[in-house]
Amino acid sequence: MPNRGREVGFEVVARRGQARRGRLHTPHGVVETPAFMPVGTLGAVKGLTPQALEEVGAEVMLANLYHLTLRPGIDAVEGLGGIHAFTGWRRPILTDSGGYQVFSLSHRNRIDDGGVTFKSHLDGASVRFTPQGVVAAQARLGVDVAMVLDECPPWPVSDAEAESSWRRTLAWAASARREAERLREGTPWGGALFGIVQGSGYEALRRRAAGELAALGFDGHAIGGVSVGEPAELRRGVVEWTAPELPADRPRYLMGVGYPADLAHAVDCGVDLFDCVLPARNARHGVLFVRPEAAEGAADGAPNGVLRIKNARFKDDPRPVDPACGCPCCRRVSRAFLHHLVRSGEHTGGVLATLHNLRFYLDFMADVRQAISSGPP
Amino acid sequence: MPNRGREVGFEVVARRGQARRGRLHTPHGVVETPAFMPVGTLGAVKGLTPQALEEVGAEVMLANLYHLTLRPGIDAVEGLGGIHAFTGWRRPILTDSGGYQVFSLSHRNRIDDGGVTFKSHLDGASVRFTPQGVVAAQARLGVDVAMVLDECPPWPVSDAEAESSWRRTLAWAASARREAERLREGTPWGGALFGIVQGSGYEALRRRAAGELAALGFDGHAIGGVSVGEPAELRRGVVEWTAPELPADRPRYLMGVGYPADLAHAVDCGVDLFDCVLPARNARHGVLFVRPEAAEGAADGAPNGVLRIKNARFKDDPRPVDPACGCPCCRRVSRAFLHHLVRSGEHTGGVLATLHNLRFYLDFMADVRQAISSGPP
Repeated sequence: MPNRGREVGFEVVARRGQARRGRLHTPHGVVETPAFMPVGTLGAVKGLTPQALEEVGAEVMLANLYHLTLRPGIDAVEGLGGIHAFTGWRRPILTDSGGYQVFSLSHRNRIDDGGVTFKSHLDGASVRFTPQGVVAAQARLGVDVAMVLDECPPWPVSDAEAESSWRRTLAWAASARREAERLREGTPWGGALFGIVQGSGYEALRRRAAGELAALGFDGHAIGGVSVGEPAELRRGVVEWTAPELPADRPRYLMGVGYPADLAHAVDCGVDLFDCVLPARNARHGVLFVRPEAAEGAADGAPNGVLRIKNARFKDDPRPVDPACGCPCCRRVSRAFLHHLVRSGEHTGGVLATLHNLRFYLDFMADVRQAISSGPP
Repeated sequence: MPNRGREVGFEVVARRGQARRGRLHTPHGVVETPAFMPVGTLGAVKGLTPQALEEVGAEVMLANLYHLTLRPGIDAVEGLGGIHAFTGWRRPILTDSGGYQVFSLSHRNRIDDGGVTFKSHLDGASVRFTPQGVVAAQARLGVDVAMVLDECPPWPVSDAEAESSWRRTLAWAASARREAERLREGTPWGGALFGIVQGSGYEALRRRAAGELAALGFDGHAIGGVSVGEPAELRRGVVEWTAPELPADRPRYLMGVGYPADLAHAVDCGVDLFDCVLPARNARHGVLFVRPEAAEGAADGAPNGVLRIKNARFKDDPRPVDPACGCPCCRRVSRAFLHHLVRSGEHTGGVLATLHNLRFYLDFMADVRQAISSGPP
């Protein structure tokens, strides 16, 4: 168990097959794993106050270094006392390094062995991210878990491109790892640093990449480069190939995935942490995750487990979105009212739906944890 | 005190000059007056859950018959158990009759002595509002306080136009009053019905109109036809002329006003109830109401008592919006974070700002009530 001082560490408390139940210790508290991390890109989950996110049961929030660098800037957040003081979120925070956003959102990236220079998607300003600078910025934010800078190739790429991209990402990871050591000696930062495995959809490369990354001694390891347009079967393959190659005594994090069934599959492969915009984004579009029992009788071509609340069938439906759910939406209003608000474009509809979907994901992970600790090993 | 059974009534518990502190009893509870009613046009204050509106201290919510008639329709709300069951708001609800919206939002109004026929601003569907139908619809919604249908003339109009418009509104009020009696005999509805004084900016007409309306025996009386573009001094004149002519034993309601200073002035004239979209709308635009102490040192051409949170001066300001405020925004985040969220167009910024501004108005009214009961009579 990599436990640095009292602050950062991971313990596995139960196992079932490859699945594990654990506890991630961070400077701002403990996260029960497997855990889902709601996405607060700019420091808040869209439409939710920090209090509302706490009340719905989130134990950790994800924010994004790329976005915070462009607005309001690392200097501003550091000057205000760090990311926790800035956002009002008092529990653990993990920041994505922004590698994914550099390649998906910014203009005119120029990548070299030392890092990447890009134009902000907001105002075209030139910004440079280096492996060392990205760790230093996250340390200045005071995050609980920092992520290395990686190159996230689009899908598909050739095996040669995937290989050369991985070589660069691995070199960046080594630089980031050294920078983190330096920062832990010289600054008050006590957070964890996670490496990221890339390798596109190539099994041999993914397996080798996992081992090469693990050799660098990170506090945890992420599976990156998925949810970039690849088929679902390939994404599952990547998880199946990569997770077992990552050290069992460190947390494993699958980035940007996904639907509940994807999470369950990854947990069975030994993954501990997840983030995804799906529950909140779907909520704003009126797509509500529900238990299969609640979806029955409301199917309208939607996959089992989803209510499309804009559908006319809900106009007069007095039931809560999911009668078994304890979220603020289900405790208080009907499908009919949510239908009315979402159809009318009222922000309250998106807020109530977001609370529901996040609670669904958080409850789902709680059930997963319970199943791991109560079942046969 | 007009107390119909146990349910509806108004008691004055303290006076200071013309200002009064009172309690409005309704089927869904008591409202301490003078009171500010947040506007939930479609059944929810924009961005807030019913729980959040309760927690910020609102005792009564306003909704709008015009909007609810067009979407989702009175049948739908009634079928779902009424407006409280529909919206999840458990405290008193007052509905505006929609007269104002018929004249400001709809297309091709055709008004006659029996009512008004108009095209929905949503889909052009033809709808007819009559004085009787509007009361019946509010009774079917199960509102605590219903408002009569009135004709709200634009500003300015000639005195002859104001007079003839008032004659029609008064005749409608008499019809509405009779319809309410009929409904109270024949249906379970136990809410109050308020009449509305019109008369544009003409003192003699306003004074006479108040007396003519009062003679009809409403449970309460509203001052309508203000905040339609007239100068502030004229609006204050209307309040000064009208309020004293309205029965002292019934609640007085100033519709659609205004800034805190306007509310204070009206309270001094004997007004008890207020609604206005200003605090919530300004919040969404980043205009925060604060105590003068909090506004000092932050003036940027804004009137005293306001922070324009988008202003660059707040980018690095670690203080709460108003250090003396107990709202969820001020208890948790800085001006800098709110600046960041509002500038970034994040919905959470509007939600936090709305909570703050509503709390400011609700605290302001609590202070007003305290001043009335603690001062010399």
